[in-house]
Amino acid sequence: MSTLPAFNPPFERMALIGLGLIGSSLAWAARRYGLARTIVGHARSEATRARAVELGFVDAVMPTAHAVAANADLVVLCVPVGANAAIAAEIGPALAPGAIVTDVGSVKGAVLRDLLPHMPPGVHIVPSHPIAGTEHSGPDAGFAELFVNRWCVLTPPESADPAAVERLTSFWRACGMSVELMTAEHHDLVLAITSHVPHLIAYNIVGTAADLEAVTRSEVVKYAAGGFRDFTRIAASDPVMWRDVFLNNRDAVLEMLGRFVEDLTALQRSIRWGDGAALEALFVRTRAIRRGIIEAGQETDAADFGRRDHET
Amino acid sequence: MSTLPAFNPPFERMALIGLGLIGSSLAWAARRYGLARTIVGHARSEATRARAVELGFVDAVMPTAHAVAANADLVVLCVPVGANAAIAAEIGPALAPGAIVTDVGSVKGAVLRDLLPHMPPGVHIVPSHPIAGTEHSGPDAGFAELFVNRWCVLTPPESADPAAVERLTSFWRACGMSVELMTAEHHDLVLAITSHVPHLIAYNIVGTAADLEAVTRSEVVKYAAGGFRDFTRIAASDPVMWRDVFLNNRDAVLEMLGRFVEDLTALQRSIRWGDGAALEALFVRTRAIRRGIIEAGQETDAADFGRRDHET
Repeated sequence: MSTLPAFNPPFERMALIGLGLIGSSLAWAARRYGLARTIVGHARSEATRARAVELGFVDAVMPTAHAVAANADLVVLCVPVGANAAIAAEIGPALAPGAIVTDVGSVKGAVLRDLLPHMPPGVHIVPSHPIAGTEHSGPDAGFAELFVNRWCVLTPPESADPAAVERLTSFWRACGMSVELMTAEHHDLVLAITSHVPHLIAYNIVGTAADLEAVTRSEVVKYAAGGFRDFTRIAASDPVMWRDVFLNNRDAVLEMLGRFVEDLTALQRSIRWGDGAALEALFVRTRAIRRGIIEAGQETDAADFGRRDHET
Repeated sequence: MSTLPAFNPPFERMALIGLGLIGSSLAWAARRYGLARTIVGHARSEATRARAVELGFVDAVMPTAHAVAANADLVVLCVPVGANAAIAAEIGPALAPGAIVTDVGSVKGAVLRDLLPHMPPGVHIVPSHPIAGTEHSGPDAGFAELFVNRWCVLTPPESADPAAVERLTSFWRACGMSVELMTAEHHDLVLAITSHVPHLIAYNIVGTAADLEAVTRSEVVKYAAGGFRDFTRIAASDPVMWRDVFLNNRDAVLEMLGRFVEDLTALQRSIRWGDGAALEALFVRTRAIRRGIIEAGQETDAADFGRRDHET
């Protein structure tokens, strides 16, 4: 894609807007690998800013997004997708020509839509999606290794400067990630099925279980080892972040959800009519995908559904 | 329930019918804790029987269920639920009076239906459901600690002998489990929401993803860390076992599935109409359940969705 060397000099000043799980992890990673001379951060909440200083993953915090963005050569928006437009409007006037502005959101079409109108000439927008996370939120949840061995998708607009894309690619690679480029539209479709709809149905079944009359909530909690707890893990993810994902990737999510429900209806019919062969055929088929994920290194082949009791 | 001591002498001869994940784990546990003087096993496949001898978790294997059941004071059916009736018919004539017959299936109403007609007088049926498992199957998948810190539900019929129930309770406790008693009907309802429907929708979404035209299978595998991989884990469980669960717990599964789809439809509508408040309200509510599961010791509070990369 470019003839630049695989690794470029680090950034002078990295500005993090949002200091939650991703923002703090990014700061830890940048620190560990020497990717920015100075790391400055902004969070809306004063408590979060104070905590960031206490934990020590930033060199300084500032009370406005405008202030951290000034003179930064890398600005990373680590906020729920719905907050991007307002932040872009605020930081636009502060941005220096040549600065790279990126984000870490799970939806990419909306990022270009929200950021582009506010960017002054000479500023490079290259949206990122580091596909890494845990169900924990906040500045205390971060750790430098979050990105290791994970994929990061960049969705540069057609007009993007190849050198800026290359520089950001090197940055994510230095954090331990593999980088892939695609259009924002394709990203949003891929993530709808691999992430957004899975989260939606996890949230949904946990809600359904909580509302039952015939089965108590304490029974649900007690017998969660039968499969349910794997859903609660992802249904504990940050509510505001996920609200914004669904509001901003509506079309792709509704399309994938439509297919999911269609398939589920067929399965429901197989159960009602006792069609064991149809059930077994699906259940055999899905094993192959699991195998692919383990072989691709995106999961460990742990024999315990995430339990570690018998190992520790 | 009973005035018997909490722990009774071990069984003389434990017969395991089925030597897969649960059968082999049970043999390892019984061995480690000295719960049976002799452990004999039967599996339909000759290769599995040979492997069981090789691995050494049974004292002997026999080519028929009838032969292992003879003279056993504890018979444990560790086969898919759909195989119970045929096995009961085969072992019935071999069973000695006083023997306890149990199983390990995820559906309990069907067990009584399938076993009762074949049991000679003086034989005690006490169905069990040790709620423990991994996505791996077969005799090599077993380990003694599988049951530790997990719940086991017993669903004795009303006519059950309290001494037999107590003896079996002690057996499961000695394997490390907490034991709870309930009716088979209630068990099947609880498990429909905590286990059966979660497995069904996990199988379903993995199937939906595999069938997409716009997103390739390799993309699904690559970006699975966004949430999808947590579903593939449970969608890799034993296909025949799960086919039988759905065929034998049809009514409760369809009832819970109906509620799930109803809730999902409301959620879909919230996304279509941009109702962020409704989405956020659900997402906040589901976190509390997750917290309950961690507090109840049914899950570790691991910050990594089951990944261990950054720890090893």
